[in-house]
Amino acid sequence: MSTRIAFLKGHGTENDFVIVPDPENAIDLPPAAVAALCDRRAGIGGDGLLHVVRSAAHPEARDMAGEAEWFMDYRNGDGSIAEMCGNGVRVFARYLQHAGHVAEGDIAVATRGGVKTVHIAKEASDGGTAGGDITVGMGKAVFPAGDVTVSVGERSWPARNVNMGNPHAVAFVDDLAHAGDLYTAPPFSPAAAYPDGVNVEFVVDRGPRHVALRVHERGAGETRSCGTGACAVAVATARRDGADPAATGTPVTYTVDVPGGTLVITERPDGEIEMTGPAVIVAEGVIEAGWLENALR
Amino acid sequence: MSTRIAFLKGHGTENDFVIVPDPENAIDLPPAAVAALCDRRAGIGGDGLLHVVRSAAHPEARDMAGEAEWFMDYRNGDGSIAEMCGNGVRVFARYLQHAGHVAEGDIAVATRGGVKTVHIAKEASDGGTAGGDITVGMGKAVFPAGDVTVSVGERSWPARNVNMGNPHAVAFVDDLAHAGDLYTAPPFSPAAAYPDGVNVEFVVDRGPRHVALRVHERGAGETRSCGTGACAVAVATARRDGADPAATGTPVTYTVDVPGGTLVITERPDGEIEMTGPAVIVAEGVIEAGWLENALR
Repeated sequence: MSTRIAFLKGHGTENDFVIVPDPENAIDLPPAAVAALCDRRAGIGGDGLLHVVRSAAHPEARDMAGEAEWFMDYRNGDGSIAEMCGNGVRVFARYLQHAGHVAEGDIAVATRGGVKTVHIAKEASDGGTAGGDITVGMGKAVFPAGDVTVSVGERSWPARNVNMGNPHAVAFVDDLAHAGDLYTAPPFSPAAAYPDGVNVEFVVDRGPRHVALRVHERGAGETRSCGTGACAVAVATARRDGADPAATGTPVTYTVDVPGGTLVITERPDGEIEMTGPAVIVAEGVIEAGWLENALR
Repeated sequence: MSTRIAFLKGHGTENDFVIVPDPENAIDLPPAAVAALCDRRAGIGGDGLLHVVRSAAHPEARDMAGEAEWFMDYRNGDGSIAEMCGNGVRVFARYLQHAGHVAEGDIAVATRGGVKTVHIAKEASDGGTAGGDITVGMGKAVFPAGDVTVSVGERSWPARNVNMGNPHAVAFVDDLAHAGDLYTAPPFSPAAAYPDGVNVEFVVDRGPRHVALRVHERGAGETRSCGTGACAVAVATARRDGADPAATGTPVTYTVDVPGGTLVITERPDGEIEMTGPAVIVAEGVIEAGWLENALR
C-alpha cells in the first residue's frame, strides 16, 4: 500500500525538524523511514523528526495522557530515539498552536523525559509574524569537579565542565574564529573527564549578560544551535561573573547568541533553567505517494 | 502582501532542488529569496532552485518559446544564476511530467544554455515507481593538452584534464578511500592548468565499462553527484581503455556510480555526450504565509 504522509518543516534557531502529525499513531515510522525523511538530499531534510501523537494513542505516553494531551515522539535524524530536545519542543509547541490544538499561554507536552511545561508568548519579540517566543524548562545544571582543558590547533583554553543531562565543556575565548572550522572534535584533557565524548562550546562576551557561542556537538560537528549548550554556557558565564541565583535568591538571565539565532536563558534560585527562543514553521506539504516505499527498498 | 509559494522538492542522484512552479513568471525570486528557500536548516533546503516558467512569459526565454514551451530558470543555492545543470534538467523534466505538462518521450526544455532535448523513458529501469530514467544531452568534451597531477595528503596521481564547459581533473585511484575526507580542495599542479580552480574526480573500476567516482566540486566540497563530472569520467575512462567513438563510429557507454546513485553516460561518434539517470519528486507543499517576508527582513 502506498503511503502519502503529511508533513511540515520547522526550526528553532536553525535546529530543524520534519514534523509528522499523526494524532492516532497510525503511521509506521521505523528508524529507516525516519532516516529517509531526514536525509537532506534524498528526502525532506532535518536534524530530527517530531512525530506528533496523542498521548492516549502511544504506548510510551499513555500514562501521561491525563496531564498532557500531546506526546512528542522525538527521533534523531538517524532514526534513533531521544528523550528530549529543547529546540525541538519549541517547534513541537509551535506546531500545536499552528494546527489550532493549543492557544498561547502554558501548555503541557509529554516527552520521553517526562511532562514538560511550555509557555507560548503572545507576540514575537522581534516583531515578526512567526509567533511569540516559546519557553521550556531544561532542568538543572551540574558542575562536575576537576579542571578541563580544550584545544584547537596550537591554542588551548581552560574549560568549565557542565552537565545538563549531557556533558559540556565551556571555554571562554577572545575570538570565535579561534575555534577554527570545528570540522573535527576539539581535543580535551583529561580524557577521563568525558569518557563518552563531550559537546564543546566556545564563548565570547557581547555585552552585559550577553554572550555568543559556537558549538561542536558530539557526533554531529559544528551545529547552528544547541539548546543544552546554550544553557551550559549561561550558567558557566554566570559563575564566571560571580552570579549564583541559589546564593542570592534572584533569577539570573543571559542572552546567548548561537549561529542560528538568539536564545534567552534564565536560571532560577531553585536551579531550574528556562530557555526562551523562537520557533518557526517554514512549510507544509505531503510526501509523494510511493516515495517512502521506494526509498526503503 | 504575504506570499504563499507552492513548491516541490526533488533530486537526481541526490543532487537536490527546490522546484517552484510559476507558469506566468509572477513570483519575484531575488537572489536572497532563492538563498532563503535553499537554506537547509532555516528554509526548505536544496543544492539549487528550479523556477518553472513558460518560455513565453520570461524575457530570457521568449526567443525559445517556439521550440520549447517551458524554461528552466535555474538558480544556484546561493541565488546566483547558472546556465545549465544536468541533474537539474532531469528533475525539471520529471516535474513537467508529474504536473501533466508533458508525457514520456522526447521533450524540449529551454535553458540559459539553449534548448535541450530531454528523453523521458517509459518505465524505471530499477523497477521503482518514481518514473522512467531521463536522458539529456551534455555537449562535447574537450581534452586540453598537458599533464596534470592532483594530490591528497602524501599521495599524488596523474590526472586527465577534461573540459565539459567547466574544468575537471580525473584521477584513477586504487581505492576511493584514498581521496580522504575531501573536506578541502585537493591541490593540483601545474597551477596554470586551472586558473579558476577545478572539479576533481577520483575513479575506481567496478567492472567492464563500469566505474565509480567521488568528486570534490569547486566551492562546494564533496557532493553526492556531479553530472558534468560523471561525463568527464566516462570519456577519460574510455580514452584510458582505448575506446574512441569518433575513431570507430560506434557509441561507447559507461555506467558511472556516484555517491548518490548511478548515471549512464554514452559518447556518440560525433562527440555528443548523453547522460541518463533517475529523477525523483520527494514531496510537494506550500511555504507558510509570511515566512519569506520574515526570512528576508
